[in-house]
Amino acid sequence: MTTMPITQAGLLPTLPGSAYTDPATFRREQERIFETRWICAVRAGDLLTPGSFRTVTVGRENVLITRARDGALRAFLNVCRHRGARLCTEESGQVRRNLRCPYHAWTYGLDGRLVAAPNLRDVPGVDRADYGLIGVALREWLGYAWVCLADTPPSFEETVIGSVTARLGDADAVERYRPADLVLGRRIDYEVRANWKLIVENFMECYHCASIHPELVQVLPEFAGGYAAQSYVGHGAEFSGDAEGFTVDGQAGFGRLPGLAEEQDRRYFATTVRPQVFLNLVPDHVILHRMFPLAPDLTRVECDWLYAADVIDSGADISASVELFHRVNEQDFAACERTQPAMHSRAYGTGGVLVPTEHHITEFHHWVTSLLH
Amino acid sequence: MTTMPITQAGLLPTLPGSAYTDPATFRREQERIFETRWICAVRAGDLLTPGSFRTVTVGRENVLITRARDGALRAFLNVCRHRGARLCTEESGQVRRNLRCPYHAWTYGLDGRLVAAPNLRDVPGVDRADYGLIGVALREWLGYAWVCLADTPPSFEETVIGSVTARLGDADAVERYRPADLVLGRRIDYEVRANWKLIVENFMECYHCASIHPELVQVLPEFAGGYAAQSYVGHGAEFSGDAEGFTVDGQAGFGRLPGLAEEQDRRYFATTVRPQVFLNLVPDHVILHRMFPLAPDLTRVECDWLYAADVIDSGADISASVELFHRVNEQDFAACERTQPAMHSRAYGTGGVLVPTEHHITEFHHWVTSLLH
Amino acid sequence: MTTMPITQAGLLPTLPGSAYTDPATFRREQERIFETRWICAVRAGDLLTPGSFRTVTVGRENVLITRARDGALRAFLNVCRHRGARLCTEESGQVRRNLRCPYHAWTYGLDGRLVAAPNLRDVPGVDRADYGLIGVALREWLGYAWVCLADTPPSFEETVIGSVTARLGDADAVERYRPADLVLGRRIDYEVRANWKLIVENFMECYHCASIHPELVQVLPEFAGGYAAQSYVGHGAEFSGDAEGFTVDGQAGFGRLPGLAEEQDRRYFATTVRPQVFLNLVPDHVILHRMFPLAPDLTRVECDWLYAADVIDSGADISASVELFHRVNEQDFAACERTQPAMHSRAYGTGGVLVPTEHHITEFHHWVTSLLH
Repeated sequence: MTTMPITQAGLLPTLPGSAYTDPATFRREQERIFETRWICAVRAGDLLTPGSFRTVTVGRENVLITRARDGALRAFLNVCRHRGARLCTEESGQVRRNLRCPYHAWTYGLDGRLVAAPNLRDVPGVDRADYGLIGVALREWLGYAWVCLADTPPSFEETVIGSVTARLGDADAVERYRPADLVLGRRIDYEVRANWKLIVENFMECYHCASIHPELVQVLPEFAGGYAAQSYVGHGAEFSGDAEGFTVDGQAGFGRLPGLAEEQDRRYFATTVRPQVFLNLVPDHVILHRMFPLAPDLTRVECDWLYAADVIDSGADISASVELFHRVNEQDFAACERTQPAMHSRAYGTGGVLVPTEHHITEFHHWVTSLLH
Repeated sequence: MTTMPITQAGLLPTLPGSAYTDPATFRREQERIFETRWICAVRAGDLLTPGSFRTVTVGRENVLITRARDGALRAFLNVCRHRGARLCTEESGQVRRNLRCPYHAWTYGLDGRLVAAPNLRDVPGVDRADYGLIGVALREWLGYAWVCLADTPPSFEETVIGSVTARLGDADAVERYRPADLVLGRRIDYEVRANWKLIVENFMECYHCASIHPELVQVLPEFAGGYAAQSYVGHGAEFSGDAEGFTVDGQAGFGRLPGLAEEQDRRYFATTVRPQVFLNLVPDHVILHRMFPLAPDLTRVECDWLYAADVIDSGADISASVELFHRVNEQDFAACERTQPAMHSRAYGTGGVLVPTEHHITEFHHWVTSLLH
Repeated sequence: MTTMPITQAGLLPTLPGSAYTDPATFRREQERIFETRWICAVRAGDLLTPGSFRTVTVGRENVLITRARDGALRAFLNVCRHRGARLCTEESGQVRRNLRCPYHAWTYGLDGRLVAAPNLRDVPGVDRADYGLIGVALREWLGYAWVCLADTPPSFEETVIGSVTARLGDADAVERYRPADLVLGRRIDYEVRANWKLIVENFMECYHCASIHPELVQVLPEFAGGYAAQSYVGHGAEFSGDAEGFTVDGQAGFGRLPGLAEEQDRRYFATTVRPQVFLNLVPDHVILHRMFPLAPDLTRVECDWLYAADVIDSGADISASVELFHRVNEQDFAACERTQPAMHSRAYGTGGVLVPTEHHITEFHHWVTSLLH
């Protein structure tokens, strides 16, 4: 087992309670974090055919993601340029050729161009090219569409791919799971009554594992010690000798994904892609969480369980596999929800403390604070 | 058919999105528009006998309207002068002689005078005349009680009657329908999750008619062209040759109201009485909408269908008649509700655009803006 | 019957309407009244055994009250010192030896000391004594735990006991009912959609008794005159000759509590302990209300009916006894709820008026105002 990292002595401070409750702070986070960074929005595989679309909340905007005729994914603000009606009100759907606003029939191509508008042809001095949908930057990676609302997005390579590489120690490590080729086995939506930062902090540390995750510690006994797999580079938590697979009862999973390195077998790797993705890698599947902050005390978390296509095609029973991390999710979110109300207390006015095994959370706090100021 | 009006070239801007969402703007609208202009509050025919009352929300106030012993309608702030209890909490009701506050039994005449209060007679230096209910200006027109919360109400003739005359081109045009003598056939309350100005704008233009009002366009085929009946003086939209009446399926209505001019037959006239009334006139009935803004994104709309007394007395089936505009209402309000959420978007930060057939909405925007500043 | 007090002539003003609706005023009241004064929190008899606990909202804080091993009650802010999880989320419960935070297993004694925390022993420079629960001042009186969030609480003798003495005219008067020895017969929780001050004002005056409390006036006929028992020192309202007991139908109660003075028999005494307790004393039981303001327009009221132990032990039917004041509560709270909405009206912008029999409410207004400024 990897040598434990050297941690700083004493207890470091957390953020003050108001950082988790103040509406003005939350607005600034939306504006300066969620509306400027790359956000993992939708699974590409959910948009298979041209004309299929998804709508997703990014920061305070509703973003429409479609697959165009050329097969590429495109993202737009979900707002008609005429009088502001929402083009698509459903979370997902399929159009035939165009996106037609139901209010006054302004009609846009799947590439966002305004292709028709009643009576507009005859109006002098109007160029339809000025009234296309407002585009949003989009990148595909790991089988997901990532979007960025900034006019000048930060480097995807540095801020997204680089953060995964830094944690896993190797740019190839995540690619060996071939996440883009995996198939969605199960998706669960959670509505968590807690600030998004409490959820990130929870995911980053394992000091709570012994208290609230008995099933997880059964499979990953080193988690009982309180050190998160995330806290040192390249380390994956080793499966218990009793566990045949990463399942709720230790039963066997579905075989190692092709292409995995030997040192990736029987190990659990996890990393956070700030601000809103948690990535969990085990030999036979990948679990990816996307977080969407909705209010200072409300966050939606969408969790995907991804498997090899042949596992899903064969109709294999994935329930013991899904159930393990679903329980972890429910245990974590309950902990976050019991923490949120105390953020208002004078007892948390200057915040709490981090024990040494949680000290890497400080770097997350610095990152948030630096973006807000 | 009337010559189409000359419209300005190009596209004019709408109000910015924040005008439809900002709580401070909404408060200012309540204060400077809904609490200073004449507001169509209740149908006089709903208060037939002395002692009958209605309560209605005008701006941010609750107004109590009663029929007094002398047969006249009176309006008051619905607040006891003693400790502030609401006198009447029901939307409508009937008292015998007086309005008695249920809390401490202060008792007011139907004319608002304080007529009794326990123990008060013996208190030196108290003149009951100082503690009557606070009156609200009231005018009756078209069979409705219009109230105004301003200390010095604007001219009813200019701001209410004049606006109808300006649209219909003739002071007698609306009176020929004898709206005050008509009888309520049906009333439907709508709760619309949209800003009141989106509802006004929707009512003012017909560019959306072809998209969302198939039944209406069937009866009024010129509406397919996008020109609202409201956009030029004196014009009424002509019924289709296939339509025997203004009904959802074109079946016959109930005969021309007595007194209508020849040129009013088989035509639909509509006008807006700012800030909150929509008036629709067809040969056999009148439809009147009253809007009550409750929040930046919530508006109550009460719609009355009014018929000749003998139609209602005979028990005639008015369902095909009511259904036509009820569908129009539902179609319009759905459009407004899909527009409201996008008012927050950066895509609508500076607003959208008006096509030429919508350009008269600009005048409404100027009117609102001038009252707020 | 006692001589009626001399009251000032004329009508005095109330507080302005905004005092009952303004969120900033409400926050200041929480900060400067409910978080600085002694608050009657829980009945001591609800925490009989060591390890039993209750959680209660005091001002904007959640306070945890436990019975420690030494038999004493202790109060703490209900927040773990580590990462801020709420220690106990239930309203009441029982632990075995310690209070263990379910998130990371930090464990506190019933006296609040941090007794264990995983991995913390090995961290240099950390003194567990620095991380005990944050204590809250606690006093027991009348069988209740009273708590105070101030760093330096005001004198309990002056602000709590003294206020009861001032009203009843005698320090022994309330003690003769032996409230600490009585047993809870019934508890009813009310959620009142009104500002807490409206509820206090209502309890302080009896000008409304004739209007809304027919059952109470039947038992206490002098209340028909509008003078509250509270308005003069030492006075108790005498039972009607027709009433055998303080019951909804005048049926007999359960005999005079032992130790009562002759002049306390067949009389009703009531007093307010500011800011949130109403105390009612009748020969065979005691009724105590605790108020907890939750929002400018929302207050929780918990009402306890307390009887001699032998009455409760015998299984006696207390329903006619409870029903009388339960009806009074429902009548009062309905009056407060019909008053709250009018506090927003321009008709109450500068407030209403107090008649002479309500003039002692002015002193309450002065008390509130002086604490806020």
